Amino acid sequence: MKIAILRERLGGETRVAATPDSVTKLVGLGAEVSVEKGAGEASRIPDALYAAAGAKVEAGAAATLKGANVVLAVRRPEAKSLGGIAKGALVLAVMDPFGNEADLAALAKTGISAFGMEFMPRITRAQVMDVLSSQANLAGYQSVIDAAAAFDRALPMMMTAAGTVRAAKVFVMGAGVAGLQAIATARRLGAAVSATDVRAAAGEQVESLGAKFIMTEALKDASGTGGYARELTKKEQAAQAELVAGHIAKQDIVITTALIPGRPAPKLVTKAMVESMAPGSVIVDLAAERGGNVEVTKPGAVSVHKDVTVIGTLNMAGKIAATASQLYAKNLLAFLETMIDKEKKALAVNWEDELVAATLLTRDGAIVHPALAAVPKPA
Amino acid sequence: MKIAILRERLGGETRVAATPDSVTKLVGLGAEVSVEKGAGEASRIPDALYAAAGAKVEAGAAATLKGANVVLAVRRPEAKSLGGIAKGALVLAVMDPFGNEADLAALAKTGISAFGMEFMPRITRAQVMDVLSSQANLAGYQSVIDAAAAFDRALPMMMTAAGTVRAAKVFVMGAGVAGLQAIATARRLGAAVSATDVRAAAGEQVESLGAKFIMTEALKDASGTGGYARELTKKEQAAQAELVAGHIAKQDIVITTALIPGRPAPKLVTKAMVESMAPGSVIVDLAAERGGNVEVTKPGAVSVHKDVTVIGTLNMAGKIAATASQLYAKNLLAFLETMIDKEKKALAVNWEDELVAATLLTRDGAIVHPALAAVPKPA
Repeated sequence: MKIAILRERLGGETRVAATPDSVTKLVGLGAEVSVEKGAGEASRIPDALYAAAGAKVEAGAAATLKGANVVLAVRRPEAKSLGGIAKGALVLAVMDPFGNEADLAALAKTGISAFGMEFMPRITRAQVMDVLSSQANLAGYQSVIDAAAAFDRALPMMMTAAGTVRAAKVFVMGAGVAGLQAIATARRLGAAVSATDVRAAAGEQVESLGAKFIMTEALKDASGTGGYARELTKKEQAAQAELVAGHIAKQDIVITTALIPGRPAPKLVTKAMVESMAPGSVIVDLAAERGGNVEVTKPGAVSVHKDVTVIGTLNMAGKIAATASQLYAKNLLAFLETMIDKEKKALAVNWEDELVAATLLTRDGAIVHPALAAVPKPA
Repeated sequence: MKIAILRERLGGETRVAATPDSVTKLVGLGAEVSVEKGAGEASRIPDALYAAAGAKVEAGAAATLKGANVVLAVRRPEAKSLGGIAKGALVLAVMDPFGNEADLAALAKTGISAFGMEFMPRITRAQVMDVLSSQANLAGYQSVIDAAAAFDRALPMMMTAAGTVRAAKVFVMGAGVAGLQAIATARRLGAAVSATDVRAAAGEQVESLGAKFIMTEALKDASGTGGYARELTKKEQAAQAELVAGHIAKQDIVITTALIPGRPAPKLVTKAMVESMAPGSVIVDLAAERGGNVEVTKPGAVSVHKDVTVIGTLNMAGKIAATASQLYAKNLLAFLETMIDKEKKALAVNWEDELVAATLLTRDGAIVHPALAAVPKPA
């Protein structure tokens, strides 16, 4: 059983799919582990630490992959980069299939079993494998750090000899994993925090963190599946927009985190709302990868719209890569462990397992995931 | 009584010496206030707010200064920029005279009374006028925000489904106003904080903020005057360096704040110590303006030395200009008020007052401050 960890190739990806800790565990499970030279560099893991943990550090992708039965990655690898791996090898990554159907079809064609980690069900048993949660948590933390760094006032109230500086007002839109961590971090820094969410259950969580929950009367609850919200009706959207418009004009920092799986991000903050904010205000749009929650967000850039700074960083968790990789590697290890026979020290995938069924996207040359049924199968 | 506030001209200065609040108060004291167009822009104060507070917004420096009896500034203005002000006008600013003797002599020659706000005595009555404290406090806050933004791990301990992320270790060198605020902010963010100071009294303050106090046995106390430390003897320096060397290698973030008035900053962190830190560590050198406490600091730049990021920002308080200006303006207002007769609504300087005596650098064409005795007087 050979497990390969490649250096990530997608521009700007700083994370890595294994750490010395996870390598140690994999070796303990009987695996031969190969790591591509420099794979951990941007996550502050020198090659020497992988070697010390029992991995073989290989000079290039080809040597790393040769004969591999498992590939661990952060981003979906390109089909053409997987030459030389074992027949039917397992590839675990965030596969991001929607809108990338051709790439997924090409992956299927190589015969690998591709597992999309982002499809992991949100059930108790799989919590330790939930890459969306582990990374969203860090993105929420970093969004506040970046907002504070861009903001030209202090966040906490300060009582000084020269008078009192008021606490900054931070508004978090969407109280999922990222939003809750953003609330907690902004509270740590002493900001006056409010938050909104279309799921009624979020209110209690928001308030337990010491923030004020803002929700329109017109919207009782819009909980969807898997902890996400459903899409709002036109009428609900209008009520929400009105509430937000009134609130946002008084905020110093706004952090938006609203995502609906497989759909473009809902536009929550209009250009007019941005322009209603005071000069020097800061917006962080954590939905930038899906087009953004804010009308003026420039995905992948920090821009200034009429004296309001809009941060559209694409890979926010990647900005704290050392921590993000630690958790991501742990998520992958936990899942992979369920597919290893610890007695025989060999792969033993139970294709009937609900975690496998939920995350398996391709197998034996075909796309097999129900959510991707519309995707044309390779000939 | 005309009071003028200029747009700061020194490259990169974002602060301003008056706010709408302080303008309102000055107008209430009977002053005519003129503000140069754009003076508050970088502190997020539009001209319209000054106008609404009762100031006249003037298009250029000449119109702003014409006939002014008082000039409020952040940085020492150039003598040639003060044409047109009233004879013997008062100029309040951070004068930074050491090393700038020729500029100060030129200022003296114009006949103004130049007050160096940084010479304000650290006595109870003058706390509200203490610009060094108000700005150092904000620099300490911002140093942690900038360190967290540059650091590629999270600061707080995080207990997640995928395992525990350890808290970052932050070490603050120098527990004066800036250092104490840095400790408090790093603690807010959940870091494990330690601090050192050569003044024994600092230990209790450090510990009251929940940080660990680190001090060598060889050094009992090196308190100097005005809350600063005295320079250490060679022997004391060696003992301190040994202590620091052992401690620093285990830190993630180091913030240095050691300043000795009128002297270059002591070198506390050697190149070897920087190189002993783990890849990805971050150092913020708040003494960069005086050459830095860290051997590899590049004043005015963020540099990377062997995988350690070294932040040598020069005007750290200026990075949160909106808050910094609010406090600075309050400091200046409080001092200026002591020189105004509130009945007659006119300037009435008591030249015998200890605050005036301590801060007055030039008067009637001569340099008059005892600390600047060595400076050649203008002919």
